Amino acid sequence: MIYITRREHFSAAHRLFLPEYSDEENFEVFGKCSNPNWHGHNYILFVTIKGEADPQTGLVIHLRHVSKLIEEKVLQKVDHKNLNIEVDFLSGKVPTSENVAIGIWNELAADIMKIGGILHCVRLEQSENNIIEYYGA
Amino acid sequence: MIYITRREHFSAAHRLFLPEYSDEENFEVFGKCSNPNWHGHNYILFVTIKGEADPQTGLVIHLRHVSKLIEEKVLQKVDHKNLNIEVDFLSGKVPTSENVAIGIWNELAADIMKIGGILHCVRLEQSENNIIEYYGA
Amino acid sequence: MIYITRREHFSAAHRLFLPEYSDEENFEVFGKCSNPNWHGHNYILFVTIKGEADPQTGLVIHLRHVSKLIEEKVLQKVDHKNLNIEVDFLSGKVPTSENVAIGIWNELAADIMKIGGILHCVRLEQSENNIIEYYGA
Amino acid sequence: MIYITRREHFSAAHRLFLPEYSDEENFEVFGKCSNPNWHGHNYILFVTIKGEADPQTGLVIHLRHVSKLIEEKVLQKVDHKNLNIEVDFLSGKVPTSENVAIGIWNELAADIMKIGGILHCVRLEQSENNIIEYYGA
Amino acid sequence: MIYITRREHFSAAHRLFLPEYSDEENFEVFGKCSNPNWHGHNYILFVTIKGEADPQTGLVIHLRHVSKLIEEKVLQKVDHKNLNIEVDFLSGKVPTSENVAIGIWNELAADIMKIGGILHCVRLEQSENNIIEYYGA
Amino acid sequence: MIYITRREHFSAAHRLFLPEYSDEENFEVFGKCSNPNWHGHNYILFVTIKGEADPQTGLVIHLRHVSKLIEEKVLQKVDHKNLNIEVDFLSGKVPTSENVAIGIWNELAADIMKIGGILHCVRLEQSENNIIEYYGA
Repeated sequence: MIYITRREHFSAAHRLFLPEYSDEENFEVFGKCSNPNWHGHNYILFVTIKGEADPQTGLVIHLRHVSKLIEEKVLQKVDHKNLNIEVDFLSGKVPTSENVAIGIWNELAADIMKIGGILHCVRLEQSENNIIEYYGA
Repeated sequence: MIYITRREHFSAAHRLFLPEYSDEENFEVFGKCSNPNWHGHNYILFVTIKGEADPQTGLVIHLRHVSKLIEEKVLQKVDHKNLNIEVDFLSGKVPTSENVAIGIWNELAADIMKIGGILHCVRLEQSENNIIEYYGA
Repeated sequence: MIYITRREHFSAAHRLFLPEYSDEENFEVFGKCSNPNWHGHNYILFVTIKGEADPQTGLVIHLRHVSKLIEEKVLQKVDHKNLNIEVDFLSGKVPTSENVAIGIWNELAADIMKIGGILHCVRLEQSENNIIEYYGA
Repeated sequence: MIYITRREHFSAAHRLFLPEYSDEENFEVFGKCSNPNWHGHNYILFVTIKGEADPQTGLVIHLRHVSKLIEEKVLQKVDHKNLNIEVDFLSGKVPTSENVAIGIWNELAADIMKIGGILHCVRLEQSENNIIEYYGA
Repeated sequence: MIYITRREHFSAAHRLFLPEYSDEENFEVFGKCSNPNWHGHNYILFVTIKGEADPQTGLVIHLRHVSKLIEEKVLQKVDHKNLNIEVDFLSGKVPTSENVAIGIWNELAADIMKIGGILHCVRLEQSENNIIEYYGA
Repeated sequence: MIYITRREHFSAAHRLFLPEYSDEENFEVFGKCSNPNWHGHNYILFVTIKGEADPQTGLVIHLRHVSKLIEEKVLQKVDHKNLNIEVDFLSGKVPTSENVAIGIWNELAADIMKIGGILHCVRLEQSENNIIEYYGA
């Protein structure tokens, strides 16, 4: 097994809050990330796929196809967007890094299988200090 | 002369647009940065101060004092905020990186002089690919 | 399972040596890291916690609580300190990166469980070229 | 078990192509990496070894010995070389990152065992956006 | 004056040598960079433009236009190419980082002026350890 | 004029203090950097040289010669050393980043001129957040 990772990035606004909570309760749970006027991040996304290297070409998968898939299924939906109100796969979810990573996994897993790979990990760096990794359910 | 730089960072939402423009005109000028529902960034801020090293202590300035100043005059105003509607020193300005850098310069220059340094440069990285430097008017 | 990582850093002095060895023997085993007058590093610390995302909040754990714990149990003890003579959890150990990582694990594991997470990995970068990862005994 | 990683780097030229393919077929499979006049990369190599920390010295392995081994068995063969025509352990292989990582594993695994470690992972970053990890057959 | 920088990257092969020199003389002058079978690098390119921020839009220049220019005049010519034999603006030159930076400057300076900016600096990182900056003749 | 930069790094211990001050006074001036038992850093050093590119070779200077000079005049003296008590060019100085940068400049300037370059800048990163630049007296 070989693991191949593609790094991408996107910039987005979000707010962490539950509508059933007061502002004080939201601040208690989510801290300054619950600022009612939004804030945002440069997210760095690492998509890792596992597979066998083709004995002839030496490739696990065509990274161009992976990039195209990430572009269509993820980046076009989240880049320069508001994660709370514009992203179908996050609808009804608090856009924590945890939920964004799970959402990206769900967007990509089946399509990566169709182009011959197995999605292994979605890694999302919300900042250089806070990192999420998700390996599927 | 010695140049000493302190690196800090903050996360914020913004939207680049002019209210007198239509959405189409704003998109023409500002591209996807004019998304009406905001987007955001992790900004990396470098504040450079010049001065002579004190012959006894070997210090140009106490970096703790510089950090405290940046914290009070800049980070508390912009971190986890919306640059369009929550930041006094950006009021009435389009929050481009250019204007944010100029605004930070104006916030800091006089106070840095009071603690014995001369503000030399405000460098603002909106992403790893887009960087602004401002050396004062 | 989701894995969430917090990155922190500290600066410390140390010396790798065994008191029962001569200087020559210590140099043979530990190389220039055995310099009798100490040397030091900027250590980068990554603490990874695993857990389920809370279905309501979308959070595995409150990272603020993790940061506070790392600050109290680790950073206050090691930052700007001498790892050989000032750190209780390294007493009697050679402060190799291996032992520092194991020591940090032991400092944090039980307390992270108390705040609802499971410590998964302590990663310690002594320099950009030398990295240790410890996943518990 | 402790995992210890050494980071190294090398610069090399290569071309991805199969001689039995036409230029058009090679471009279809390998994209611009099949440019007939070569291109090249700065590769970053991470070699991870696992083992127990010696109870006396606190070391898993002497990193100097690992560095020396990587220098002799890998870097002298690939640094400032053409991966298609100058590297014995890639002979007859398309020098994809996958095959380079596998080749480096095969060069190092037995010798690392001789100096008391177990090779755990070869990670090869061909660029900041494309990363391969290989954990052995 | 504001300075705005766009970061791009490309990968290329090259060989440093003078055809009138013997292999030994080339090795004496250019070291392992004179390897007859080529080697290559991931180059990181920073293009810095200076100008006044537009008082209405807050922009020095439209970075999209700069990116498009760099793509057309530089990246399409050098990315995944051989700098010795495929790049018009390096014809007859030894492709040292110095000459590549000067060549990129000459490709861009006039066109950047046409879109309203003044080219200030071309910075080229051939590796993390070797960096060239050119500010024009 | 072309500016060429070589990046190097070293690890060292130090303590910021004046012997004529009490521990309290030293802590007041130097903060936690005055810890009596030392602490340390991974320093990143950038040495920038300016010159004209040789019209035939395209080189400003042979970087190998610069590296050798930095190795002999700086790194052998400071790497894995105690900056307060083992470094001739810091004798009698408080080893602040300011003084270390000035000291490195003085070690290198004349010798760089002998190999045909002009020392332009010594940049010293004591951590990712604290950076010094010195351009000579």
